[in-house]
Amino acid sequence: MPLQPPLPKPPAGLFPRAVERARITDFLSRALEASLERVAAGSTVPTFDRERFRAELARFDFVAPRPLEAVLEWTVAQLEHGITHMTHPCHFGLFNPNPTLPAQCADRIAGAFNPQLASTASSPVPVELEAHVIRAIGARAGLPAGAGHFATGGAEANYTALILALTRADPGFAERGARAFAGPVVLYASRESHGAWHKIAHQAGIGRAALNLVATDGAGRMDPAALAAAVALDRAQGRVPVMVAATAGTTAAGMIDPLGAIAALAAREGLWLHVDAAWGGAALVSERLRPHLAGVEAADSLTIDAHKWFATTMGCAMFITPHAPLLSQAFHSATSYMPSSDAALDPYLTTVQWSRRFLGLRLFLSLATVGWTGYAQHVERAVAVIDRVRAGLEQRGWTTVNDSPLALLALLPPPALGEVRTLVRRVVRAGRAWVAAASFEGRDVVRICATNGETRERDVETLVDELNAPAG
Amino acid sequence: MPLQPPLPKPPAGLFPRAVERARITDFLSRALEASLERVAAGSTVPTFDRERFRAELARFDFVAPRPLEAVLEWTVAQLEHGITHMTHPCHFGLFNPNPTLPAQCADRIAGAFNPQLASTASSPVPVELEAHVIRAIGARAGLPAGAGHFATGGAEANYTALILALTRADPGFAERGARAFAGPVVLYASRESHGAWHKIAHQAGIGRAALNLVATDGAGRMDPAALAAAVALDRAQGRVPVMVAATAGTTAAGMIDPLGAIAALAAREGLWLHVDAAWGGAALVSERLRPHLAGVEAADSLTIDAHKWFATTMGCAMFITPHAPLLSQAFHSATSYMPSSDAALDPYLTTVQWSRRFLGLRLFLSLATVGWTGYAQHVERAVAVIDRVRAGLEQRGWTTVNDSPLALLALLPPPALGEVRTLVRRVVRAGRAWVAAASFEGRDVVRICATNGETRERDVETLVDELNAPAG
Repeated sequence: MPLQPPLPKPPAGLFPRAVERARITDFLSRALEASLERVAAGSTVPTFDRERFRAELARFDFVAPRPLEAVLEWTVAQLEHGITHMTHPCHFGLFNPNPTLPAQCADRIAGAFNPQLASTASSPVPVELEAHVIRAIGARAGLPAGAGHFATGGAEANYTALILALTRADPGFAERGARAFAGPVVLYASRESHGAWHKIAHQAGIGRAALNLVATDGAGRMDPAALAAAVALDRAQGRVPVMVAATAGTTAAGMIDPLGAIAALAAREGLWLHVDAAWGGAALVSERLRPHLAGVEAADSLTIDAHKWFATTMGCAMFITPHAPLLSQAFHSATSYMPSSDAALDPYLTTVQWSRRFLGLRLFLSLATVGWTGYAQHVERAVAVIDRVRAGLEQRGWTTVNDSPLALLALLPPPALGEVRTLVRRVVRAGRAWVAAASFEGRDVVRICATNGETRERDVETLVDELNAPAG
Repeated sequence: MPLQPPLPKPPAGLFPRAVERARITDFLSRALEASLERVAAGSTVPTFDRERFRAELARFDFVAPRPLEAVLEWTVAQLEHGITHMTHPCHFGLFNPNPTLPAQCADRIAGAFNPQLASTASSPVPVELEAHVIRAIGARAGLPAGAGHFATGGAEANYTALILALTRADPGFAERGARAFAGPVVLYASRESHGAWHKIAHQAGIGRAALNLVATDGAGRMDPAALAAAVALDRAQGRVPVMVAATAGTTAAGMIDPLGAIAALAAREGLWLHVDAAWGGAALVSERLRPHLAGVEAADSLTIDAHKWFATTMGCAMFITPHAPLLSQAFHSATSYMPSSDAALDPYLTTVQWSRRFLGLRLFLSLATVGWTGYAQHVERAVAVIDRVRAGLEQRGWTTVNDSPLALLALLPPPALGEVRTLVRRVVRAGRAWVAAASFEGRDVVRICATNGETRERDVETLVDELNAPAG
């Protein structure tokens, strides 16, 4: 080899030597433990001084290097005071959990090895391990054997369902897009379904007008008769119904659409049946709760977010379908350089992503550690927490307006406590417990979901007290 | 509160007590350090026994619980032998890096606090911190102030660009989708562009036929005259040109499209100019390399993957645009329950995702630790590594067929070494160094990219020796 100047050293701040790495790793372990202990005893909501934070942030001009430990310490302190805390035991949140330790370990393993999960050839063990988890969850849902993958979130998984439905519905969609259809396409979801469907219809090139929000039954569930009428009307007017998305666990009230009736209608009308069980799907682990999801086994596709009730770190959604070949039809590509050992399984050829992180390990490690039984204990415990909240609030004159078998309450306060959104704002600002305001069947409700697996009796008492504290 | 049975304990496997958490955390720290040390001295490619692995995996039926430490130990061992190793110093890979320590620390912080980055109200500090990094990178690229966000990968960022371009091009797209356009839409990228564009066109509802792959100049760069001719022909035939995607750092050969000429044509024709600098964008940190990206400042949108040359963990892409209001037009929604302090900045209203992980901290911590200067050292070092590889191989009769200023070589071996793909397969299988085969301008080449920031002189020597070893 010709003589060349020696290579410069790698920047030590990015790639420190082994001893230094170990030291910083342990420093961070201790800093996180100490911080999260303070979080659990502190405010549920941000307490930082925004102007001061902005001034400090502006000083990060990336000109002078800084010691990593100092930057880590600063960052942990900013997070400690600058977010709504999912890890606080009085956080009764929007489905985002206190993450399990096995899931956090999985994140570290994925980060340290940094495998590329685009291809079976690069990452045979991770790809098979993810497929194992997907199969196990699919079987638990009673779906015929098929395929699936992990995604960033329910929005990505639901979007994947729509792309499959469109690809199946018209052989011209893949090449010519939405113009291939004989008329405007229609996608159905209930009025209580997730807000992301609007974006998804836009992104899929069928337009926001394609989303037909079907009436509910007054109790937050899609009305199958209204769905049938909507499909008939759309067909009569030259539109092309393609997919119905049922929700198993609505965001506002945890309600489950009548899956059996919707499945029957979808089969009769030749529509793709998607079940968005992003939160509610975890109930499949419990023998007691599972019957509430009956009908899910008829789904053409299913979304379950492990980063919701399975309590992994974000984002860790699952998309599961019995129609494995359709994934390849929708997401195939060709390159000269990607290694492959099995194109039908290569994630970059069967999902919306290309480069991808090893997400599924989070659920694998959690499931492997506690098994179905441990997870059943986790979800049933959440329902027990919510039962206690309900009992406590009803005794104080609150009215429960939803009838969900899952761990989510929608309530009306007694009139003396004033208007819902004002009340919720007051409680949230006080920082001792976190709940949300939501609309359920057209009226404002206080929304309470058990999202932290470590919530204790005294946290329930704190919540009930906070919700009943008079305006000060 | 009425008397109720006490709450059951949380499953200890998911939520262990503080002392146990600390013990397992440290156990994993040591296990990862030891494993990655062995990886660096071992095979670059999987050496596992697939049948044995499958048999062991099948035993994870999630019936009986298992000790977390045992599962962690098993998992680390499977990864050690079951992936292509990005962390191996002789891995000259498909852009996937050996991740920086600051990025790995960021992953841990994000996992431990698990903030919800969907909304400004939930995560004010993380959202502002990500915006700070996006602004800094955008300014480095010379883009006018605008907006942007972190995404899972270049595919998601490039897809975001297309949705913005379509949303701007026709006011009817948002509501009515691709049918709103007067004719079939066209999107341009070069023949050497990334394979994900096919999927992206499919997913966006404009169809794969919408992708017009423009001829290159024989050196891997888009030919602006061919682009002009294609646009004219498409218009003449009733199609609707919408966007041109220039590539700054092609996957096969690291080539940079003539950004200035393409920008001029895009401006003249009223096309959205997207620059896919997923890998090459990191060159912006170096004063020496930055001039090669001249023209990028004219982009309507820009993709840079921090998980490529910036060496964060996967996936950590950036999407940057001067057209901030368009992000809201494309991705807006409405819910009754999401808290918000600034809808124009809420990530769930301005990006394709909804729930989202705190990704940007990885680049923030890395940049904060070493600054632009440290990152310049990192990318310039990669170019120096590649210069040495080139010198070593050319001396042994190899021919370089690309002319990239970046850290990527496309080469032809001397005829005695045989056909490219056979040669690459042999080298990869031997497990001492990893390179790829690719097609560049219609012929097979050996593709070598400096992706590990810790590659040493002796690793370059190993690579050169391996590539010249006679078939055995």
